[in-house]
Amino acid sequence: MATEIERKFLVTSDAWQEEAIGPGLRLRQGYLHAGSPVIRIRQAGDAAFLTIKGPGLLARAEFEYPIPPEDAAAMLATLCPPPIIEKTRTRLRDGWEVDVFAGHLAGLVLAEIELADADQPFPRPAWLGREVTGDPRYQNNALARAAGPPTP
Amino acid sequence: MATEIERKFLVTSDAWQEEAIGPGLRLRQGYLHAGSPVIRIRQAGDAAFLTIKGPGLLARAEFEYPIPPEDAAAMLATLCPPPIIEKTRTRLRDGWEVDVFAGHLAGLVLAEIELADADQPFPRPAWLGREVTGDPRYQNNALARAAGPPTP
Repeated sequence: MATEIERKFLVTSDAWQEEAIGPGLRLRQGYLHAGSPVIRIRQAGDAAFLTIKGPGLLARAEFEYPIPPEDAAAMLATLCPPPIIEKTRTRLRDGWEVDVFAGHLAGLVLAEIELADADQPFPRPAWLGREVTGDPRYQNNALARAAGPPTP
Repeated sequence: MATEIERKFLVTSDAWQEEAIGPGLRLRQGYLHAGSPVIRIRQAGDAAFLTIKGPGLLARAEFEYPIPPEDAAAMLATLCPPPIIEKTRTRLRDGWEVDVFAGHLAGLVLAEIELADADQPFPRPAWLGREVTGDPRYQNNALARAAGPPTP
Protein backbone atom coordinates (compact mmCIF):
# COMPACT_ATOMS: atom_id res chain seq x y z
CA MET A 1 0.00 0.00 0.00
CA ALA A 2 1.13 3.51 -0.84
CA THR A 3 -0.42 6.84 0.03
CA GLU A 4 -0.59 8.91 -3.12
CA ILE A 5 -0.56 12.72 -3.06
CA GLU A 6 -1.24 14.01 -6.51
CA ARG A 7 -1.90 17.55 -7.77
CA LYS A 8 -3.57 18.07 -11.11
CA PHE A 9 -3.57 21.18 -13.35
CA LEU A 10 -4.86 22.40 -16.68
CA VAL A 11 -2.27 23.14 -19.37
CA THR A 12 -2.22 26.46 -21.25
CA SER A 13 0.15 25.71 -24.16
CA ASP A 14 2.16 22.99 -25.91
CA ALA A 15 5.44 24.30 -24.46
CA TRP A 16 5.58 21.27 -22.10
CA GLN A 17 6.61 19.15 -25.11
CA GLU A 18 10.12 20.61 -24.93
CA GLU A 19 10.54 19.07 -21.47
CA ALA A 20 9.46 15.51 -22.44
CA ILE A 21 11.55 12.51 -21.40
CA GLY A 22 11.13 10.00 -24.23
CA PRO A 23 7.93 9.17 -26.11
CA GLY A 24 4.49 9.09 -24.53
CA LEU A 25 2.92 5.92 -23.16
CA ARG A 26 -0.48 4.96 -24.53
CA LEU A 27 -3.01 4.29 -21.74
CA ARG A 28 -6.50 2.75 -21.95
CA GLN A 29 -8.48 2.52 -18.77
CA GLY A 30 -11.91 1.76 -17.43
CA TYR A 31 -13.58 1.27 -14.07
CA LEU A 32 -14.91 -1.95 -12.54
CA HIS A 33 -16.28 0.34 -9.82
CA ALA A 34 -16.28 4.11 -10.17
CA GLY A 35 -17.50 4.83 -6.62
CA SER A 36 -15.58 4.28 -3.40
CA PRO A 37 -13.21 2.50 -3.55
CA VAL A 38 -12.31 3.24 -7.17
CA ILE A 39 -11.30 0.02 -8.95
CA ARG A 40 -9.51 0.68 -12.21
CA ILE A 41 -8.29 -1.53 -15.06
CA ARG A 42 -5.47 0.07 -17.07
CA GLN A 43 -3.54 -1.02 -20.14
CA ALA A 44 -0.21 0.83 -20.30
CA GLY A 45 1.66 0.01 -23.49
CA ASP A 46 2.19 -3.78 -23.35
CA ALA A 47 1.53 -4.02 -19.60
CA ALA A 48 -1.70 -3.92 -17.58
CA PHE A 49 -2.65 -3.14 -14.00
CA LEU A 50 -5.53 -3.40 -11.59
CA THR A 51 -5.61 -0.47 -9.14
CA ILE A 52 -7.70 0.11 -6.04
CA LYS A 53 -7.93 3.65 -4.68
CA GLY A 54 -9.47 4.46 -1.32
CA PRO A 55 -11.52 7.59 -0.63
CA GLY A 56 -9.99 11.09 -0.72
CA LEU A 57 -9.10 13.57 -3.45
CA LEU A 58 -5.57 14.61 -2.51
CA ALA A 59 -4.06 11.79 -0.38
CA ARG A 60 -5.52 8.30 -0.74
CA ALA A 61 -4.57 4.69 -0.06
CA GLU A 62 -3.64 2.95 -3.31
CA PHE A 63 -3.07 -0.71 -4.12
CA GLU A 64 -1.80 -1.65 -7.57
CA TYR A 65 -1.19 -5.09 -9.10
CA PRO A 66 0.10 -6.12 -12.54
CA ILE A 67 -2.35 -8.38 -14.38
CA PRO A 68 -2.16 -10.27 -17.70
CA PRO A 69 -2.89 -7.84 -20.60
CA GLU A 70 -5.45 -10.30 -22.02
CA ASP A 71 -7.37 -10.18 -18.71
CA ALA A 72 -7.35 -6.37 -18.87
CA ALA A 73 -8.65 -6.44 -22.45
CA ALA A 74 -11.46 -8.85 -21.47
CA MET A 75 -12.47 -6.78 -18.42
CA LEU A 76 -12.38 -3.48 -20.36
CA ALA A 77 -14.58 -5.07 -23.04
CA THR A 78 -17.10 -6.83 -20.79
CA LEU A 79 -17.05 -5.55 -17.17
CA CYS A 80 -16.15 -1.83 -17.40
CA PRO A 81 -19.02 0.43 -18.52
CA PRO A 82 -18.08 2.39 -21.66
CA PRO A 83 -16.64 4.78 -22.66
CA ILE A 84 -13.06 3.69 -21.96
CA ILE A 85 -10.59 6.54 -21.26
CA GLU A 86 -7.79 6.78 -23.82
CA LYS A 87 -4.81 9.05 -23.31
CA THR A 88 -1.09 9.36 -23.95
CA ARG A 89 1.03 10.05 -20.88
CA THR A 90 4.37 11.83 -21.29
CA ARG A 91 6.88 12.19 -18.46
CA LEU A 92 8.68 15.49 -18.20
CA ARG A 93 11.81 16.62 -16.43
CA ASP A 94 11.09 17.89 -12.90
CA GLY A 95 8.56 15.12 -12.14
CA TRP A 96 5.59 16.39 -14.15
CA GLU A 97 3.47 14.08 -16.28
CA VAL A 98 1.17 15.37 -19.04
CA ASP A 99 -1.90 13.42 -20.23
CA VAL A 100 -3.21 14.16 -23.72
CA PHE A 101 -6.67 12.63 -23.96
CA ALA A 102 -8.21 11.02 -27.06
CA GLY A 103 -11.61 9.48 -27.85
CA HIS A 104 -14.57 11.16 -26.13
CA LEU A 105 -12.23 13.47 -24.18
CA ALA A 106 -10.17 14.68 -27.19
CA GLY A 107 -9.00 18.24 -26.58
CA LEU A 108 -8.37 17.77 -22.84
CA VAL A 109 -4.75 18.04 -21.62
CA LEU A 110 -3.89 17.67 -17.92
CA ALA A 111 -0.60 17.88 -16.01
CA GLU A 112 -0.04 15.92 -12.79
CA ILE A 113 2.68 15.79 -10.20
CA GLU A 114 3.08 13.28 -7.36
CA LEU A 115 4.32 14.62 -4.04
CA ALA A 116 5.68 12.99 -0.90
CA ASP A 117 3.49 15.19 1.30
CA ALA A 118 0.82 17.82 0.74
CA ASP A 119 3.10 20.74 1.66
CA GLN A 120 6.04 19.78 -0.56
CA PRO A 121 7.06 22.66 -2.89
CA PHE A 122 7.13 21.79 -6.60
CA PRO A 123 8.19 23.45 -9.87
CA ARG A 124 5.52 25.58 -11.63
CA PRO A 125 6.39 25.76 -15.32
CA ALA A 126 5.08 28.62 -17.52
CA TRP A 127 2.62 26.36 -19.36
CA LEU A 128 0.83 25.40 -16.14
CA GLY A 129 -2.80 26.57 -15.89
CA ARG A 130 -5.43 26.44 -13.18
CA GLU A 131 -5.23 23.72 -10.50
CA VAL A 132 -8.10 21.19 -10.72
CA THR A 133 -7.02 18.78 -7.95
CA GLY A 134 -10.14 19.50 -5.91
CA ASP A 135 -12.50 19.71 -8.90
CA PRO A 136 -14.48 16.45 -9.03
CA ARG A 137 -15.17 16.92 -12.78
CA TYR A 138 -11.50 16.22 -13.47
CA GLN A 139 -11.24 13.00 -11.47
CA ASN A 140 -10.60 10.09 -13.80
CA ASN A 141 -13.72 8.20 -12.78
CA ALA A 142 -15.83 11.33 -13.50
CA LEU A 143 -14.06 11.83 -16.84
CA ALA A 144 -14.89 8.23 -17.76
CA ARG A 145 -18.60 9.02 -17.45
CA ALA A 146 -18.50 12.52 -18.98
CA ALA A 147 -19.90 13.15 -22.46
CA GLY A 148 -16.85 15.30 -23.31
CA PRO A 149 -14.07 17.39 -21.75
CA PRO A 150 -15.24 19.60 -18.83
CA THR A 151 -15.63 23.34 -19.60
CA PRO A 152 -12.41 24.80 -18.08
CA MET B 1 -9.95 -15.76 -17.21
CA ALA B 2 -11.89 -18.86 -16.26
CA THR B 3 -15.59 -19.57 -16.50
CA GLU B 4 -16.72 -21.00 -13.20
CA ILE B 5 -19.71 -23.32 -12.92
CA GLU B 6 -20.45 -23.91 -9.29
CA ARG B 7 -23.39 -25.66 -7.62
CA LYS B 8 -24.14 -25.00 -3.98
CA PHE B 9 -26.16 -27.10 -1.51
CA LEU B 10 -27.23 -27.15 2.11
CA VAL B 11 -25.79 -29.91 4.30
CA THR B 12 -28.02 -32.14 6.45
CA SER B 13 -25.49 -33.85 8.75
CA ASP B 14 -21.84 -33.96 9.82
CA ALA B 15 -21.23 -37.20 7.89
CA TRP B 16 -19.22 -35.24 5.28
CA GLN B 17 -16.36 -35.04 7.80
CA GLU B 18 -15.50 -38.69 7.10
CA GLU B 19 -14.69 -37.75 3.50
CA ALA B 20 -12.33 -34.84 4.32
CA ILE B 21 -8.94 -34.57 2.60
CA GLY B 22 -6.67 -32.99 5.21
CA PRO B 23 -7.55 -30.16 7.60
CA GLY B 24 -9.79 -27.22 6.72
CA LEU B 25 -8.47 -23.93 5.38
CA ARG B 26 -9.45 -20.80 7.30
CA LEU B 27 -10.91 -18.13 4.99
CA ARG B 28 -11.71 -14.47 5.73
CA GLN B 29 -13.29 -12.45 2.98
CA GLY B 30 -14.95 -9.16 2.26
CA TYR B 31 -16.18 -7.23 -0.75
CA LEU B 32 -14.71 -4.07 -2.29
CA HIS B 33 -17.84 -4.11 -4.44
CA ALA B 34 -20.76 -6.44 -3.75
CA GLY B 35 -22.73 -5.55 -6.90
CA SER B 36 -21.79 -6.43 -10.47
CA PRO B 37 -18.97 -7.22 -10.94
CA VAL B 38 -18.33 -8.74 -7.52
CA ILE B 39 -14.85 -7.75 -6.30
CA ARG B 40 -13.70 -9.89 -3.40
CA ILE B 41 -10.70 -9.79 -1.06
CA ARG B 42 -9.93 -13.18 0.51
CA GLN B 43 -7.36 -14.33 3.05
CA ALA B 44 -6.83 -18.10 2.72
CA GLY B 45 -4.48 -19.37 5.41
CA ASP B 46 -1.21 -17.47 4.79
CA ALA B 47 -2.13 -16.45 1.23
CA ALA B 48 -4.47 -13.77 -0.08
CA PHE B 49 -6.34 -13.15 -3.33
CA LEU B 50 -8.28 -10.49 -5.16
CA THR B 51 -11.10 -11.96 -7.25
CA ILE B 52 -13.40 -10.36 -9.83
CA LYS B 53 -16.57 -12.20 -10.78
CA GLY B 54 -18.76 -11.14 -13.67
CA PRO B 55 -22.57 -11.36 -13.64
CA GLY B 56 -24.42 -14.70 -13.51
CA LEU B 57 -25.32 -17.16 -10.78
CA LEU B 58 -24.27 -20.49 -12.28
CA ALA B 59 -21.58 -19.77 -14.91
CA ARG B 60 -19.60 -16.54 -14.62
CA ALA B 61 -16.32 -15.04 -15.81
CA GLU B 62 -13.77 -15.03 -12.99
CA PHE B 63 -10.40 -13.33 -12.67
CA GLU B 64 -8.25 -14.09 -9.62
CA TYR B 65 -4.89 -12.64 -8.59
CA PRO B 66 -2.67 -13.37 -5.58
CA ILE B 67 -1.95 -10.24 -3.53
CA PRO B 68 0.27 -9.57 -0.50
CA PRO B 69 -1.50 -10.75 2.71
CA GLU B 70 -0.79 -7.37 4.34
CA ASP B 71 -2.63 -5.60 1.50
CA ALA B 72 -5.59 -7.96 2.02
CA ALA B 73 -5.61 -7.24 5.75
CA ALA B 74 -5.53 -3.46 5.11
CA MET B 75 -8.34 -3.61 2.53
CA LEU B 76 -10.52 -5.88 4.72
CA ALA B 77 -10.04 -3.45 7.61
CA THR B 78 -10.55 -0.18 5.73
CA LEU B 79 -12.23 -0.64 2.31
CA CYS B 80 -14.60 -3.62 2.72
CA PRO B 81 -17.85 -2.84 4.58
CA PRO B 82 -18.23 -5.09 7.66
CA PRO B 83 -19.08 -7.76 8.58
CA ILE B 84 -16.27 -9.85 7.11
CA ILE B 85 -17.20 -13.46 6.22
CA GLU B 86 -15.27 -16.07 8.18
CA LYS B 87 -15.42 -19.74 7.33
CA THR B 88 -13.38 -22.93 7.26
CA ARG B 89 -13.27 -24.73 3.91
CA THR B 90 -12.65 -28.47 3.83
CA ARG B 91 -12.00 -30.38 0.63
CA LEU B 92 -13.61 -33.80 0.33
CA ARG B 93 -13.02 -36.78 -1.90
CA ASP B 94 -15.09 -36.63 -5.09
CA GLY B 95 -14.54 -32.88 -5.59
CA TRP B 96 -16.90 -31.51 -2.94
CA GLU B 97 -15.90 -28.63 -0.66
CA VAL B 98 -17.73 -27.87 2.59
CA ASP B 99 -17.76 -24.38 4.16
CA VAL B 100 -18.44 -24.14 7.90
CA PHE B 101 -19.20 -20.51 8.66
CA ALA B 102 -18.23 -18.62 11.83
CA GLY B 103 -18.84 -15.08 13.11
CA HIS B 104 -22.23 -13.60 12.17
CA LEU B 105 -23.05 -16.66 10.02
CA ALA B 106 -22.23 -19.31 12.67
CA GLY B 107 -24.48 -22.34 12.18
CA LEU B 108 -24.46 -22.19 8.37
CA VAL B 109 -22.80 -25.08 6.51
CA LEU B 110 -22.71 -25.18 2.70
CA ALA B 111 -21.34 -27.71 0.21
CA GLU B 112 -20.07 -26.64 -3.21
CA ILE B 113 -18.88 -28.46 -6.29
CA GLU B 114 -17.20 -26.95 -9.38
CA LEU B 115 -18.14 -28.41 -12.73
CA ALA B 116 -16.66 -28.17 -16.21
CA ASP B 117 -20.10 -27.58 -17.74
CA ALA B 118 -23.63 -27.12 -16.46
CA ASP B 119 -24.77 -30.60 -17.51
CA GLN B 120 -21.87 -32.56 -16.00
CA PRO B 121 -23.11 -35.33 -13.66
CA PHE B 122 -21.68 -35.23 -10.11
CA PRO B 123 -21.76 -37.41 -6.97
CA ARG B 124 -24.66 -36.76 -4.55
CA PRO B 125 -23.59 -37.92 -1.08
CA ALA B 126 -26.19 -38.84 1.56
CA TRP B 127 -25.49 -35.70 3.65
CA LEU B 128 -26.40 -33.39 0.76
CA GLY B 129 -29.47 -31.22 1.34
CA ARG B 130 -31.43 -28.80 -0.83
CA GLU B 131 -29.69 -27.05 -3.73
CA VAL B 132 -29.31 -23.27 -3.18
CA THR B 133 -27.32 -22.40 -6.34
CA GLY B 134 -30.10 -20.16 -7.66
CA ASP B 135 -31.07 -18.73 -4.26
CA PRO B 136 -29.64 -15.19 -4.05
CA ARG B 137 -29.69 -15.30 -0.22
CA TYR B 138 -26.86 -17.84 -0.32
CA GLN B 139 -24.55 -15.91 -2.63
CA ASN B 140 -21.44 -14.88 -0.75
CA ASN B 141 -21.97 -11.16 -1.31
CA ALA B 142 -25.53 -11.46 0.10
CA LEU B 143 -24.25 -13.50 3.07
CA ALA B 144 -21.70 -10.76 3.78
CA ARG B 145 -24.56 -8.27 4.28
CA ALA B 146 -26.97 -10.62 6.07
CA ALA B 147 -27.63 -10.25 9.80
CA GLY B 148 -27.36 -14.04 10.24
CA PRO B 149 -27.69 -17.36 8.38
CA PRO B 150 -30.69 -17.49 5.96
CA THR B 151 -33.70 -19.53 7.13
CA PRO B 152 -33.29 -22.80 5.17
